[in-house]
Amino acid sequence: MTQPAEVALAMDWGGTWSRIAVADGQGEILWQSRRLNDPASDRERLIGDSEDLIRQAVEWCGERAIAGLGIAVGGPVDAPTGALMEPNLPALNGVSLPALWAPLLGRPVYVGNDANLAALGEFRYGAGLAARRQGNAPRTLVYVTVSTGIGGGVIEQERMFLGAHGQAVEVGHMVIDRSSAAPRCRCGRGGCLESLASGTAIARIARLRAAEPGAGDSPLAGPEPAQITSERVFEAAGQGDPLALDIVNGAVQALAVGFTNILHLYNPDLLALGGGVTSGLISLGLLPQINALMLESAMTEGHRDIRLEPSRLGDAAGMLGAASLVWDGAGRGGG
Amino acid sequence: MTQPAEVALAMDWGGTWSRIAVADGQGEILWQSRRLNDPASDRERLIGDSEDLIRQAVEWCGERAIAGLGIAVGGPVDAPTGALMEPNLPALNGVSLPALWAPLLGRPVYVGNDANLAALGEFRYGAGLAARRQGNAPRTLVYVTVSTGIGGGVIEQERMFLGAHGQAVEVGHMVIDRSSAAPRCRCGRGGCLESLASGTAIARIARLRAAEPGAGDSPLAGPEPAQITSERVFEAAGQGDPLALDIVNGAVQALAVGFTNILHLYNPDLLALGGGVTSGLISLGLLPQINALMLESAMTEGHRDIRLEPSRLGDAAGMLGAASLVWDGAGRGGG
Repeated sequence: MTQPAEVALAMDWGGTWSRIAVADGQGEILWQSRRLNDPASDRERLIGDSEDLIRQAVEWCGERAIAGLGIAVGGPVDAPTGALMEPNLPALNGVSLPALWAPLLGRPVYVGNDANLAALGEFRYGAGLAARRQGNAPRTLVYVTVSTGIGGGVIEQERMFLGAHGQAVEVGHMVIDRSSAAPRCRCGRGGCLESLASGTAIARIARLRAAEPGAGDSPLAGPEPAQITSERVFEAAGQGDPLALDIVNGAVQALAVGFTNILHLYNPDLLALGGGVTSGLISLGLLPQINALMLESAMTEGHRDIRLEPSRLGDAAGMLGAASLVWDGAGRGGG
Repeated sequence: MTQPAEVALAMDWGGTWSRIAVADGQGEILWQSRRLNDPASDRERLIGDSEDLIRQAVEWCGERAIAGLGIAVGGPVDAPTGALMEPNLPALNGVSLPALWAPLLGRPVYVGNDANLAALGEFRYGAGLAARRQGNAPRTLVYVTVSTGIGGGVIEQERMFLGAHGQAVEVGHMVIDRSSAAPRCRCGRGGCLESLASGTAIARIARLRAAEPGAGDSPLAGPEPAQITSERVFEAAGQGDPLALDIVNGAVQALAVGFTNILHLYNPDLLALGGGVTSGLISLGLLPQINALMLESAMTEGHRDIRLEPSRLGDAAGMLGAASLVWDGAGRGGG
């Protein structure tokens, strides 16, 4: 009788959901579960809830050997200590999950920022794997999630580019418009990419413009502009509403400037895009336009050697990146 | 009798000068020479002139064993092949210097972009070494040269961050002002950092403003505004001229926005600045102001953990980075 193959546990601990999966060395998710986080919970409770999830996963594994646990968290992780810094769930500030859980699990525990790990997941098991299968192995991959906020990660020579404190690639907080007319960003500066093209920005701009007299008979100009979401803007744009199309075009123009900067700053040959706004742009068939704007503005042939691809892993990218940390730690380099 | 220590040959092949040095494993320059490039020369002639310099260096070495030759060039270098791409000296486009000179020299030849190699030189032998001696070993170093143009390099975990084609860290061609009022850049876009804060930009802005009636009795408002250089602007600012101070302040504000983006994008703990404009800013005591503006705008503690330092190696940074390539190739990791 052969032993069942070794597996990795992988968590994604976001502001809203805690997700957990059991993954094999090929990046297949064998089992998964999730629970809603209550942001009002204290540290004890948040950690206890996650320990419940881990227990469920261990139980599911049965006879399978567990190589370790990888955890993707929203917010920065101090690279040397693994401590969470200014996380989405403030009660967890300063907590080192490896120190907490490695003794409990009896296996190594790794933690990283969810955007950096999503980049690693896409490189190993998603857009990067698809490119390798087509004979276009990427040398430098940039992953950008365009969602409520905008974040990202970079893989260079098969490794995450982390920076001194694991906080590199905050591409949403790159100022691309320092003019006084630019909107303020939640980070305090003006004209960050996130303040111009995130889901939050699209909704904010739509609320303002829907309340203007010029909004006319746009489906956005209903009685409750405060209820407008970026999803509703993409829906209206899909129905051909000129106001919604104009708002989406504003985001496209800002993303093209930001992505061209990304080409010049990281010189990727694969740019993988995830997040809800990306889904909206794809549904409207707008990725080719963004690609054309980027190529028009890039400086050299080397900067123009870029493929723009949607994320292949969607919500699972961060978890599969976290699983990669386990396989790297186990000395097997993953899929 | 002990053998004389092994040495590295190091060239910096810029648009104006070709420089060559003999360096030891501690980054000391034992001998150096240079010659003016004639941009009208054809490929044969440019290569022949550089071979003369190499011959001089080999002659000087005498009994010393030569570990290899490292070459820093202006413009991108295709990382896998070592071919020069769109170099400052167009006649050299596509030339692979390792393929050309390794057989001639009988030793390994390495080539890299001068800004990337200046970052490596500063990391090994300059600002990075000084920090290590003070017990602050940098994990991620960004080097930025603010000169005629603006370029840079990143060292992460002791290695150059190159990108897919060795063309990452084109920080001068990061758009920070996409408003229609922003100046055009030589790269074709508007509002690049280089178009707002390089020596060329400072001179261009000064020429425009010196010709305006408001220039009054500024020493810049002479009979020949076309002759104004950035050096003259810094000189006038040093004498307290309000127009010159205002122009310099414009560059300071643009650099602060660009450098804060650099903190968010690469999360360095050491930012080393070189180039003639940096010298001008230092002479006016303006680095602390740039530092304060950066710290004010950075997002998190991890991004604010940054030291801003002038380059320690000046013009020699690129050559000493090229020498580092030789030591890395020889398996000794340099100083």
